[in-house]
Amino acid sequence: MFFKFLPKEFNFFDLFDKQVKTAVDAAVFFREIVAKNSLDDAAIEKMKDIEHQGDSIAHDIIEQLNKTFITPFDREDIHALTVEIDDITDMIHTIVNRLKVYKLPPNDKNLVKFAVVIEQSIRAVELAVNGLRKHKNLNLVTEACVEIKRLENVGNAMRDETLGELFEKVKDPLLVIKWKEIYQDAETVLDICEDVTHIVGSILVKQA
Amino acid sequence: MFFKFLPKEFNFFDLFDKQVKTAVDAAVFFREIVAKNSLDDAAIEKMKDIEHQGDSIAHDIIEQLNKTFITPFDREDIHALTVEIDDITDMIHTIVNRLKVYKLPPNDKNLVKFAVVIEQSIRAVELAVNGLRKHKNLNLVTEACVEIKRLENVGNAMRDETLGELFEKVKDPLLVIKWKEIYQDAETVLDICEDVTHIVGSILVKQA
Amino acid sequence: MFFKFLPKEFNFFDLFDKQVKTAVDAAVFFREIVAKNSLDDAAIEKMKDIEHQGDSIAHDIIEQLNKTFITPFDREDIHALTVEIDDITDMIHTIVNRLKVYKLPPNDKNLVKFAVVIEQSIRAVELAVNGLRKHKNLNLVTEACVEIKRLENVGNAMRDETLGELFEKVKDPLLVIKWKEIYQDAETVLDICEDVTHIVGSILVKQA
Repeated sequence: MFFKFLPKEFNFFDLFDKQVKTAVDAAVFFREIVAKNSLDDAAIEKMKDIEHQGDSIAHDIIEQLNKTFITPFDREDIHALTVEIDDITDMIHTIVNRLKVYKLPPNDKNLVKFAVVIEQSIRAVELAVNGLRKHKNLNLVTEACVEIKRLENVGNAMRDETLGELFEKVKDPLLVIKWKEIYQDAETVLDICEDVTHIVGSILVKQA
Repeated sequence: MFFKFLPKEFNFFDLFDKQVKTAVDAAVFFREIVAKNSLDDAAIEKMKDIEHQGDSIAHDIIEQLNKTFITPFDREDIHALTVEIDDITDMIHTIVNRLKVYKLPPNDKNLVKFAVVIEQSIRAVELAVNGLRKHKNLNLVTEACVEIKRLENVGNAMRDETLGELFEKVKDPLLVIKWKEIYQDAETVLDICEDVTHIVGSILVKQA
Repeated sequence: MFFKFLPKEFNFFDLFDKQVKTAVDAAVFFREIVAKNSLDDAAIEKMKDIEHQGDSIAHDIIEQLNKTFITPFDREDIHALTVEIDDITDMIHTIVNRLKVYKLPPNDKNLVKFAVVIEQSIRAVELAVNGLRKHKNLNLVTEACVEIKRLENVGNAMRDETLGELFEKVKDPLLVIKWKEIYQDAETVLDICEDVTHIVGSILVKQA
């Protein structure tokens, strides 16, 4: 029957839900990592696995997108959304990798604070992305986007305070270089989450 | 009457003019900031206001774009132009914020030089963007783009000289880290202005 | 005759081949640079020439793209591919420029290793881009992309090891700042090469 060959539109929603779940996994695991004072090979390996899983789903979405003629929303929005969600997981992976390369103890009080806000923000991203599927969830999506924006502001203030303190208190320049990069990466995760809200906003306006 | 519901194309030009005016405001205020040797809360607040204003106009443009079927030039060019102009103001805001977080005196002779070139470049960006509205201004637009490109080269040379001098003369590594980031940000403002010329060029070619 | 005015589709392939050849030139010259212990003005000038040449071809491609109605593959893919290939040459130029500004001896054993991998990766990018022209080269294109991905992983490991060693062994923070930036730039070249494979993948899927 002909409709068997119609593009399965719903696939995109399923794939987006799976992809954003990977970003949540990364955030949850990041919180576990910064709860400990050392970073073993198993943790590095697990983080890498999560990143690979996200990568693979992003790859599926792009391939599906390139093959599908009709999509639930604009092709460019689907592409942009996938790339941003992938960037979230990538950046968390990058932070964990830097902690290892720089031989830093993960359990830093400022990084712990960032990890909490990062998890909150990514859970809000999950709400927003899940909500794209059903039109009735529109309010929920909007609320999630407001929350993500709020958390990005929280992150900005945290980064400023943390960097100010870092330059004030830490006198070893090599240590300053290392932590500065990691704190800025942590804030970048929240920036990327905010970028997601811009794409979600663009999708909502077009469907209004 | 039906035509009342036609998209008001001219809105985009009005909005772009308003948005680029905000970038000019940011540049002018940045020059005021680097003329003084300290950065008070009122200045930080004013800079933040300018950035918010730019943000809000960019948001209006994207929303308008998503709702409008016919646009004066390619949708992707409108989107790209808005994002770049927004990035100009954002980057200036970032520099001012870093001066505060790093507790640096704004009145640095190299930063003053950058502020002058930044204002020149953004005024040329304003000319180019304003000129998109009327076809008769085509030469003016092209001249402005040539000037922006020239100023980006000036900025590159300034950054190289400034960084060379920084590593040569400043022996406190923490101070080097701070100023290096700020000088590179300053040069990035000029890079973003140059990116605007690429989008403007793409618009001109399509309308030729 | 009418067909004289038809868009010359093949132009894009010729232009891409020319552009990617410039990136190869940059990689080859970079290897020559890191083989010597000093960087003279002639080398700086030659590197700048290569970068300008790449820039000029990228400009031609974008202009051609804006004027051409029918293109061999998606407009957005052509645009993205040009930008990425341009970014490769730009980043190599940036590294050479930093070596000069930071007054560093190019002949650093780690940078030499990076230069080898960078050249290998860009030669694979050349194979992939050349192969887009003829459908029969599909396997060759896919193999080249796999190789680029492999070299990106090699580069990641090299960067991690090199940065670990840098913070371990070099005690002068100013030297750490300089080399850290250069090693990260070197790895970025390989990242950009990998970005090319994503665009190539997108082109292949659409033509399947």
